[in-house]
Amino acid sequence: MSRPRWVVGVDIGGTNLVAGVVPLEGGEPRALRTQPTLSHRGPEAVVTDVVRMARTAVREVLAEIEGKPEDVVGMGVGCPGPVDRQSGVVIESPNLRWVDYPLRERIEALVDWPVVVDNDANCATYGEWWQGAGKGCSSLVGVIIGTGVGGGFIYEGRIVHGASDGAGEVGHMTLNVSGRRCACGNEGCLEAYASGPAIAARAREGLEAGTESVLTSLVDGVFDDITAATVYEAVVMGDPYATEVMTETAKFLGAGIANLINILNPEAVVVMGGVTRAGDHLFVPLQAEVRRRAFKALVDACRILPARLPESGVVGAAGMMAAGVRSQPTA
Amino acid sequence: MSRPRWVVGVDIGGTNLVAGVVPLEGGEPRALRTQPTLSHRGPEAVVTDVVRMARTAVREVLAEIEGKPEDVVGMGVGCPGPVDRQSGVVIESPNLRWVDYPLRERIEALVDWPVVVDNDANCATYGEWWQGAGKGCSSLVGVIIGTGVGGGFIYEGRIVHGASDGAGEVGHMTLNVSGRRCACGNEGCLEAYASGPAIAARAREGLEAGTESVLTSLVDGVFDDITAATVYEAVVMGDPYATEVMTETAKFLGAGIANLINILNPEAVVVMGGVTRAGDHLFVPLQAEVRRRAFKALVDACRILPARLPESGVVGAAGMMAAGVRSQPTA
Repeated sequence: MSRPRWVVGVDIGGTNLVAGVVPLEGGEPRALRTQPTLSHRGPEAVVTDVVRMARTAVREVLAEIEGKPEDVVGMGVGCPGPVDRQSGVVIESPNLRWVDYPLRERIEALVDWPVVVDNDANCATYGEWWQGAGKGCSSLVGVIIGTGVGGGFIYEGRIVHGASDGAGEVGHMTLNVSGRRCACGNEGCLEAYASGPAIAARAREGLEAGTESVLTSLVDGVFDDITAATVYEAVVMGDPYATEVMTETAKFLGAGIANLINILNPEAVVVMGGVTRAGDHLFVPLQAEVRRRAFKALVDACRILPARLPESGVVGAAGMMAAGVRSQPTA
Repeated sequence: MSRPRWVVGVDIGGTNLVAGVVPLEGGEPRALRTQPTLSHRGPEAVVTDVVRMARTAVREVLAEIEGKPEDVVGMGVGCPGPVDRQSGVVIESPNLRWVDYPLRERIEALVDWPVVVDNDANCATYGEWWQGAGKGCSSLVGVIIGTGVGGGFIYEGRIVHGASDGAGEVGHMTLNVSGRRCACGNEGCLEAYASGPAIAARAREGLEAGTESVLTSLVDGVFDDITAATVYEAVVMGDPYATEVMTETAKFLGAGIANLINILNPEAVVVMGGVTRAGDHLFVPLQAEVRRRAFKALVDACRILPARLPESGVVGAAGMMAAGVRSQPTA
């Protein structure tokens, strides 16, 4: 087995599809490509696109290294929402509006490789553990800030999937029993304070109350145009109000991460998503809040790190497939 | 190997020492005995008592079944506070006032068996998984309500110890970012609402404000004498105020358990400690709160159960030793 072998990784997001090819033994993803998901077209159209992207990426890599089709040994796919790993069925993905969709079966019908399917937050966490910020850790928690707040937990080198493949819903941890209403119906969830839309909503609230900020000019006075990205931009520009919004975000995120550290005592927590662009404006108050709330010995044992990979989800999906392939006896 | 083999289990508590002998393959603990810890005498006196209790229990069991000393294959010891399992050193136990005490080494010097040492909450959780309410589950969270609130997490049949053997501090999960001050220095911890002393303190606050309750007569008007046990007693007697205190306890405990279910997706959560004596007065509002806060699919996958063993900690300590012995190849 002297020729390099490869695994395909795909991240099916609510907004974009991303695909790439990763060496079986780990390394940089190659031939990365992205295109809009356009999920309103239904799951079959998305699967067709995913398979086309994967095939093109594989062709590109094999041409470059003069490889052969059999050098590609599998494909991992990350997808939002709970996924039944055994059957490869996406149980429910509100972002994609899929219910009980047999994703693995449909992809496997179109490609020549075995396919594994897992939740996108698990894939992103696995990617950062396998090749990113958490490389070499035996236990790691991933916290992914996006439209929602997701997470994953790796223990002794394996994702903790839980009893029904649903573990890792860290965004719906109650931090404030009578707090802000969350989209899930609960009150005071981490997600209700720290998701992208929650950050934007909190920023808008202050502006509507008359607070002065560079944010107003960044969106030409149209407060509805404010997104979390606008807030990060204003923070980097040194805007005091945006910095205040970011500090408050860091406090809630810090309380949530403190809980995860007290419960799980991980070697590392990797924070992923656009929020990490705020850099020290996020991580300094976040670290302080964690230290204030979690046990000292457990905080000392844990590094809190920003994600390092550009496409944690693609690398992680490929990595899960790779782990399965590598653990099989070679015939 | 036809004669039955045995493991000793010991639970070193802040108040009492408990010891017993458990069949290697599982079963009822035998020759259970308990005596006050009297930790002010220092660790050596406690170790001497533990060893004496273990030897007496072993003699009793071996006499009864006409066994031989070599039928006892090991001893497990549970102890409050973080424990370094590799070295068997108790890192810090505020309840016992021990710091960096080499517990395993000191016990092994006095007995003929190998010894394992672990945190008491981990032992209690393991006991309920091995022989109690969670028997047969692949994943289980234990929540132990006593002077503090402790916990443990079993995944695929093994305790998740974390990076520095400190996982399971579920009592210090923030549920209320600006809430009640906890003994740990943090605000709004589960323990600040649901530990035995917190339940008693909340009950006292209402009585001092003039609320009528059977609690007043149960302690002859001396509010300082109210403990969590008094509150459970009044609940069982049907006292409306005590029931209200218990319902509030159930709400916080429910929010904490909902967080654990969202994060870990366990097959079962086992609640241990005196609080379970309140029965349905606790479990009915607790279940409702969990259902209100956690994802439906994860709640549906999880049973919330009261502990079943009288001495979960003794059985679990023995069980951890037993797991180690059984996993060794028989020479």
